Amino acid sequence: MSSRKEFRDLAAPEEAHAAIASLSLAGDAETVPLDEARGRVLAERLDADLDVPGFDRASMDGYAVRAKDTFGADEADPVTLDLAGAVHAGAEPDVTVESGTCAEISTGAVMPPGADAVVMVERTDEKGDDEILIRKAVAPGDHVMVAGADIAAGARALGPGTRITPREIGLLSALGVDEVRVRGTPTVGIVSTGDELVRPGDELDSSRGQIYDVNSYTIAAGVEEAGGEAKLYPHAGDDYDEMERILLDAAEECDLVLSSGSTSASAVDVIYRVIEDKGELLLHGVAVKPGKPMLVGSLGDSAYVGLPGYPVSALTIFRTFVAPAIRREAGLPEPRTATVTGKMATRERYEEGRMRLMPVGLLEDEDGETLVYPVDKGSGATTSLVEADGVVEVGADTSYLSEGEDVTVQLFSPDVRLPSLLGVGEDDPALSRLLDRVDNPRYLPLGSREGLRRLRDGLPDVAVVAGPADRDVESVDLGGWTREWGLVVPADNPADVEGLADLVDRDLRFVNRDTNSGLRTSLANALADLADERGVERHSLVDAIDGFDLTVKAHESPARKVLGGSADVGLGLRATATRLGLGFVPLGTQDVAVRANPARVDKAGVQAVSAALDAVSDVVGDLDGFESR
Amino acid sequence: MSSRKEFRDLAAPEEAHAAIASLSLAGDAETVPLDEARGRVLAERLDADLDVPGFDRASMDGYAVRAKDTFGADEADPVTLDLAGAVHAGAEPDVTVESGTCAEISTGAVMPPGADAVVMVERTDEKGDDEILIRKAVAPGDHVMVAGADIAAGARALGPGTRITPREIGLLSALGVDEVRVRGTPTVGIVSTGDELVRPGDELDSSRGQIYDVNSYTIAAGVEEAGGEAKLYPHAGDDYDEMERILLDAAEECDLVLSSGSTSASAVDVIYRVIEDKGELLLHGVAVKPGKPMLVGSLGDSAYVGLPGYPVSALTIFRTFVAPAIRREAGLPEPRTATVTGKMATRERYEEGRMRLMPVGLLEDEDGETLVYPVDKGSGATTSLVEADGVVEVGADTSYLSEGEDVTVQLFSPDVRLPSLLGVGEDDPALSRLLDRVDNPRYLPLGSREGLRRLRDGLPDVAVVAGPADRDVESVDLGGWTREWGLVVPADNPADVEGLADLVDRDLRFVNRDTNSGLRTSLANALADLADERGVERHSLVDAIDGFDLTVKAHESPARKVLGGSADVGLGLRATATRLGLGFVPLGTQDVAVRANPARVDKAGVQAVSAALDAVSDVVGDLDGFESR
Repeated sequence: MSSRKEFRDLAAPEEAHAAIASLSLAGDAETVPLDEARGRVLAERLDADLDVPGFDRASMDGYAVRAKDTFGADEADPVTLDLAGAVHAGAEPDVTVESGTCAEISTGAVMPPGADAVVMVERTDEKGDDEILIRKAVAPGDHVMVAGADIAAGARALGPGTRITPREIGLLSALGVDEVRVRGTPTVGIVSTGDELVRPGDELDSSRGQIYDVNSYTIAAGVEEAGGEAKLYPHAGDDYDEMERILLDAAEECDLVLSSGSTSASAVDVIYRVIEDKGELLLHGVAVKPGKPMLVGSLGDSAYVGLPGYPVSALTIFRTFVAPAIRREAGLPEPRTATVTGKMATRERYEEGRMRLMPVGLLEDEDGETLVYPVDKGSGATTSLVEADGVVEVGADTSYLSEGEDVTVQLFSPDVRLPSLLGVGEDDPALSRLLDRVDNPRYLPLGSREGLRRLRDGLPDVAVVAGPADRDVESVDLGGWTREWGLVVPADNPADVEGLADLVDRDLRFVNRDTNSGLRTSLANALADLADERGVERHSLVDAIDGFDLTVKAHESPARKVLGGSADVGLGLRATATRLGLGFVPLGTQDVAVRANPARVDKAGVQAVSAALDAVSDVVGDLDGFESR
Repeated sequence: MSSRKEFRDLAAPEEAHAAIASLSLAGDAETVPLDEARGRVLAERLDADLDVPGFDRASMDGYAVRAKDTFGADEADPVTLDLAGAVHAGAEPDVTVESGTCAEISTGAVMPPGADAVVMVERTDEKGDDEILIRKAVAPGDHVMVAGADIAAGARALGPGTRITPREIGLLSALGVDEVRVRGTPTVGIVSTGDELVRPGDELDSSRGQIYDVNSYTIAAGVEEAGGEAKLYPHAGDDYDEMERILLDAAEECDLVLSSGSTSASAVDVIYRVIEDKGELLLHGVAVKPGKPMLVGSLGDSAYVGLPGYPVSALTIFRTFVAPAIRREAGLPEPRTATVTGKMATRERYEEGRMRLMPVGLLEDEDGETLVYPVDKGSGATTSLVEADGVVEVGADTSYLSEGEDVTVQLFSPDVRLPSLLGVGEDDPALSRLLDRVDNPRYLPLGSREGLRRLRDGLPDVAVVAGPADRDVESVDLGGWTREWGLVVPADNPADVEGLADLVDRDLRFVNRDTNSGLRTSLANALADLADERGVERHSLVDAIDGFDLTVKAHESPARKVLGGSADVGLGLRATATRLGLGFVPLGTQDVAVRANPARVDKAGVQAVSAALDAVSDVVGDLDGFESR
């Protein structure tokens, strides 16, 4: 391990921006058909090369006349003109308007020879078959759009760098343009490193430590969102020759190469050596957290940036340093939606000395203000990706942010929307269905106890609490249901488990839920009752259960351990046992209550939860052991 | 013409919204591969069906140990463990950690049997080849991420209605999902009506009154921007049977049919009759300006909306009434960028009784505030499409908006950006090049005189003035150039035109510029000099020029009339004559000055103009008859 690189002399974040800006990521300009041009950026100025309209054109339905023939005409004293014919849009006039005559004309039709004005139909009357009464005098040019009046040939139509939106499509159509020269999209190659990575959709071998590749797909989507074209390369392990071959291929074919995916220092070392040997390394390590091991350099004619390995870190560094450079080259400035401002919901302290990119979640409070709270589950968690909405840049010399302080949040995507609801609490299958009826909710299944704790601190809109609450928190009960809980065992209960006593007295491998879970609280209470009954201390029963401290994350997890054969008994719900085809030994029924932050009961998201709870029997539906209350 | 429909009993705008909302535009849900899922909306909830990670995983590089073996270890008193082997990411452990041993482990690797914690490499030392010094005590679980700790199988991962952005792609990848069920995109058929319409790229016959189809392409781009899929149908004229066939085809194949394109009342009548005969007409005519002739109904299983004919009107009605309905069905809420607020730059009066959708331009003033000004060139102009940024909804009972009043602008596209600069004034080829060097400028080539007038009223950032100014306006001269002007004649000057006197004295067909143009002012001054010389009144010379009042829109237009053979002489620039291969008779040289609004000299766009003018000789370049000054 002595070959590992140390990240001394970290570059300042501004140096990283400058280093990336110094590289060329530009794609070649290209020609695209009009119907694929939306969202692209004009590569060069486009001047009109024809007049629009290309002819003198009636701008009203009515009669084409010689203006001087209408002199003096009014309602009281109309002029009579002979009807010489008609001109329709899309047809060449086959009539000439001589003095004393007129021709019927439709909006958009070519002005017939001789005519110099149009009298609108509302100011005329038919008089027999071949005479028209004109009840208004017109001047030459009235209701006529002369050739080139809209756009004249030779005039500047659209400048270079123009973003093509529907209205530009309209102007280009008017000019008869069916293909346009647009800026190239930077091609961005993504090389993921790590022998353990498997493509989504492929088979995963967990015993070999395989995991699905997260970064490649996340970053590829980020590249496309920033206006680049992403190209995924095969996974590379930490073999130097293989890595060199893949990186050189990518550099040959792309304007920018990103490496990403591995959290393994040895793979990062190999990349470092390839870039140092075959390209140029501009900087190695940036004074930012996360993101310290970032690399910036070039390889062949391509720019190169090495992203950190953890998903949130990789997306954060991509969003902060790389996406702006891709947008710049693509000519797509960052949309205004890409940042929001809000108030810190909590006070946060920082160690000084390194810029920090803090992942945060967003929430609207009762006054419609945006609250910002840090999300920190350790940057290795993929779930942080969807629990955080963006990043707050905290300067290297900032030691704390106060509660209520205004901060700017760089959203992970301009399409990120504020959740309509923040809920925290028990993991429960009926709740999951309830959330399906709310538009864009966010729910953190951290357990009933944690839900109540956070509700007391005032951040979430609702807490979901299962079983007896050990804490009194001011809240509004929005409704709820009951659920039957107990011991999940293999199908047909081969060990004949009958109740809690079997867990204590027999040699059964048990899997528990964590202490924040309402299921765990009910189990603890049941054990306390059993201890009372037996006249022993509760801990003596607990100590007798093999696996009491073996806790897993979600409500189905213990049952899945049973299903997988690594446990004999799991704490869980009847509904889960039924769903997974397992046996079930009931221990009780517990309430699940949705409790709202009293200040937030009028929030739309809370109202939506409340409305869904009004029809709670629909929500609970066929979930075995669930009842509306 | 008696069959024309009158729009009596106009519906209120809210009724139009309600009528459209009552129609079903929903497309069918579909399954798309992960790499095409960005921007789409999940059709159903997605629960995890595997644990992430799928195994107990080292979260640090270091040594896997039995925690109890490290008890009491610290820097002063390290513990020595035997190195039993190594485990790498992506490989199945082939080592078991017995008491007193450890195994080297990489971040992400599977914890070997026996081990329950990891000591990070920084707290260890190699001692010979097969022993490791452990300088820190660890507890069971330290630096280990247990199976399912990130996402547990059975847990709710993403809810229905979730917009898929890069971070959701990340979560889906982690779950190994390679295709997702997403909401269908509403398919929107666009039937353009009007015999005169030609597709961009096809040959145009102006003598038959043909024009390029603008609306179909503009609206198609708008449909796609709103999350729909646009399908263009062949142009239909005003033949009932053909129209019926096309509309029924479109209704069969699409969720929504829009008709658009014609300004001809007869074509609209035909559509009206088809919908009335074959479908259901919900409303006919809306109390909104523009957009009165809007139709809403259904045809077969498809919804139907008829848009007005003029491009800006069509886009305005589409944006106000139709795009929100498409977004709703596609599950894509309107982005926050789609509206901005600003202050009215002028006072505007309205006739009461009908809601008005006023096209407006936007501009940033010296204080960074957004100014909003009406753009009204007659809604038939295509150029209004790019001169307006969006629409202000003015209620039916509003009789005026005050200068400085706050208004909300619905942008024509969420991608519309505020121009960095608003310029008004002379049409000039060097100016066109100068603007190429400014990011996102807006320039209205309304002539020098109009530029000065507007600069005096304070709206634009700069005015561009050619020739002698007839008005004294406070401004800052940013620089400029000179240009040679005169008479453009056919190549080799076949009529031997020598100067202005020939125009007066000979029978030559002339084409002029409009009175706002600086060229026209210089011409008028030259004629005054000739009149003085001859001792006659100026108007007698003007009257003697055939075509003096025949004015065309842009600086090249007179020369193009000469090129096309419809005039013998045109007012113009030497540069234009050279470019088009025409002859030129010089009459003089005039200054072109870029003059800034004194309050706006520090605006970025004005600074960019100023910087470009510092290198004016680059801008003027090879333009014949142009000189920097």
